[in-house]
Amino acid sequence: MRAVDIIIKKRDGGVLTDEEIRYFIDAYTAGEIGDDQAAALMMSIFFRGMDYDETTALTLAMAESGKQVDLSGIKGVKVDKHSTGGIGDKTTMIVGPITAACGVPVAKMSGRALGFTGGTIDKLESIPGLSTSIPIEKMVEIVNDTGICVAGQTLELAPADKKLYALRDVTGSIESIPLIAASIMSKKIAAGADAIVLDVKYGSGAFMKTKADAKALADTMCGIGEKAGRRTVAVLNSMEEPLGMCIGNTIEVKESVETLKGGGSEDLKKHCFELAAHMISLGLGIGFEEAEAMALKSVEDGSALRKFAQMIKVQGGDPSVCDDPDAALGIPKYSYVIRAEKDGSIEKCDAYSIGMAAYALGVGRTSLKGKIDPRAGVKLIVKSGVDVKKGDGLCVLYSDSPVSEEAIERASSAYIYR
Amino acid sequence: MRAVDIIIKKRDGGVLTDEEIRYFIDAYTAGEIGDDQAAALMMSIFFRGMDYDETTALTLAMAESGKQVDLSGIKGVKVDKHSTGGIGDKTTMIVGPITAACGVPVAKMSGRALGFTGGTIDKLESIPGLSTSIPIEKMVEIVNDTGICVAGQTLELAPADKKLYALRDVTGSIESIPLIAASIMSKKIAAGADAIVLDVKYGSGAFMKTKADAKALADTMCGIGEKAGRRTVAVLNSMEEPLGMCIGNTIEVKESVETLKGGGSEDLKKHCFELAAHMISLGLGIGFEEAEAMALKSVEDGSALRKFAQMIKVQGGDPSVCDDPDAALGIPKYSYVIRAEKDGSIEKCDAYSIGMAAYALGVGRTSLKGKIDPRAGVKLIVKSGVDVKKGDGLCVLYSDSPVSEEAIERASSAYIYR
Repeated sequence: MRAVDIIIKKRDGGVLTDEEIRYFIDAYTAGEIGDDQAAALMMSIFFRGMDYDETTALTLAMAESGKQVDLSGIKGVKVDKHSTGGIGDKTTMIVGPITAACGVPVAKMSGRALGFTGGTIDKLESIPGLSTSIPIEKMVEIVNDTGICVAGQTLELAPADKKLYALRDVTGSIESIPLIAASIMSKKIAAGADAIVLDVKYGSGAFMKTKADAKALADTMCGIGEKAGRRTVAVLNSMEEPLGMCIGNTIEVKESVETLKGGGSEDLKKHCFELAAHMISLGLGIGFEEAEAMALKSVEDGSALRKFAQMIKVQGGDPSVCDDPDAALGIPKYSYVIRAEKDGSIEKCDAYSIGMAAYALGVGRTSLKGKIDPRAGVKLIVKSGVDVKKGDGLCVLYSDSPVSEEAIERASSAYIYR
Repeated sequence: MRAVDIIIKKRDGGVLTDEEIRYFIDAYTAGEIGDDQAAALMMSIFFRGMDYDETTALTLAMAESGKQVDLSGIKGVKVDKHSTGGIGDKTTMIVGPITAACGVPVAKMSGRALGFTGGTIDKLESIPGLSTSIPIEKMVEIVNDTGICVAGQTLELAPADKKLYALRDVTGSIESIPLIAASIMSKKIAAGADAIVLDVKYGSGAFMKTKADAKALADTMCGIGEKAGRRTVAVLNSMEEPLGMCIGNTIEVKESVETLKGGGSEDLKKHCFELAAHMISLGLGIGFEEAEAMALKSVEDGSALRKFAQMIKVQGGDPSVCDDPDAALGIPKYSYVIRAEKDGSIEKCDAYSIGMAAYALGVGRTSLKGKIDPRAGVKLIVKSGVDVKKGDGLCVLYSDSPVSEEAIERASSAYIYR
């Protein structure tokens, strides 16, 4: 088998066999096939696409390119959740405790913030004392004990994906649905779950800009999941506006606690209950409505909040966060209120602009080893559909350093009047 | 300017500017852009194509990526000729002397054989004593003195093309008309001619398999030539069957001498007079018919043959080749006649199969430093349109080593009956 023949076959619209895909990925991971040939194959896939069988073969080859997590020591159906990212996405901190409170084991590995995208691990680590550096064996033990554990990736999952993603980033083949789908699903499959709930976002603050593209990505990922023997459900959600009202690290923890207490914004609650219901439905093998009712009940009776407090405590953090978040997490030194410049009706609070404002405040990092400001963030006062008068507060910017001009400009420009 | 933005622009169907193309090629030649990004751009061009302006910009950027030949010391309009290759293509040894005999200076740089393709330099060097290692300054002097010189490439012309061609070869983007056109024309422009005659072949023994592709390639190259200020003419010719009756090194010299004496096969003569007439027409600024009449006359009056003898002598070779080729060049040790297996009418003598037979006999080389057998080759007895009886000779295989089974099989399979 020769790499160039595989490239030419795909270039000319052929369907690659499992063996061809496996050969290419294995040889690329081992450094026997170079970046030049891999870039050419990725670009050919960009133009020609891949069918479900090919995409599944690519996903499995990448999933099996490194170590894989063994969660078989955990009793029950392990359900994982993946969000394609967004602004203000704190769903893991809400959906995880709800799902665990309903009896479905949650053994989740999450990532860190990079650029203007947030990361669950950074949000959790803004809780004093909490650690996410937990080896797999310990994680299995914790989940069997308490039902939930959220850890940072200690193993390098799917090294082929990591290598290919970095290559695609510099060679212009990121925006390919089969390649995006294989990238996400390879890591989910390597992470060992039995079933997967996919939260696919679209709009200005998301990777997929249109609903049609998000739908195509969701369909492809579900197709891969089924072929790979993992029950997979996808939900589509708009990310034109931030999810909920808080964007940052500690302030998203605070909003999560508020939501687990039954408060919080309607869009965030609706979204979290939908995701939790799918996870519970898959985990317990019950209908969606029954699962949704269980999820609602776990918030009403306080069991979800207690589960979050238990998780924080087991992972070394201060569970008083669930009682008095402001005291446990502190208040940022600086704040700045963005005010309406005129009377009018808000048509949109643009997710991307708010994400960039949060990034300018210090929420994100420019490299994987960069530092973040845990208390920095944006708290929205209004989103779309609200009438404002000149001088009304639109949002508040927080930081432990003086609020930058860029953050103010970005946040001001986020508000679009009708 | 960022390489990835240029890749994405082309990928999405955009038209690249001169500056973008120049930046990419210069940075790639300098090693600042890697093979991964270059492979991705080449594949994007494969899918999206390039217009004449883009292809010209690419050609000029590659032509100017290294040293360029300065032929300004030669009086008159310098006309170069390029053939896209083929089996039995000895046109330079015939067309060069004819053109020079008609007063057009011929300062030509040619290449060596690789794989089953022949090379003019190897054919010329099969003449005892003849050297093609001639520096540019010496070449200019010889052409001003005698009107003709054919040398091997001493400079590395268009290093960007060399690097890109090797990359395209392993990354599956060879078969792109703008990329092929830019590759050929960059070397021709760097070689310093004022006008260019392109001999574009199509069919089984050629790079372009269909006449339509050959036409598209010819049109693109003429478009580049005009935009780059070089008068350019292209002729299309079938390469389903070998050109003329001899394929090899010394036997092609013999056939060239025969043709310059007015003999030889009709297809070869017709082809050579057409090319020579175009070169003379461009060089002297006269009409095609007048030029063709001059070419015919130079063969009839012996001036073309004398010019070839003069060229051989000046380059250190034995000019008696033009009087008694068999004595000067020798007779190969081994020969084998392929005979008709049945009565019938020959529909085709396949160029590719004959080329592979010649390669198996030792005519070509497997690497640029490999050895060739100058006396090896195939002499056709019949081509298409001839009726044969069982046992009639179809062709003769020559070699200084025993004739291999593979050569016999390849040559036998070349003959297709109606």
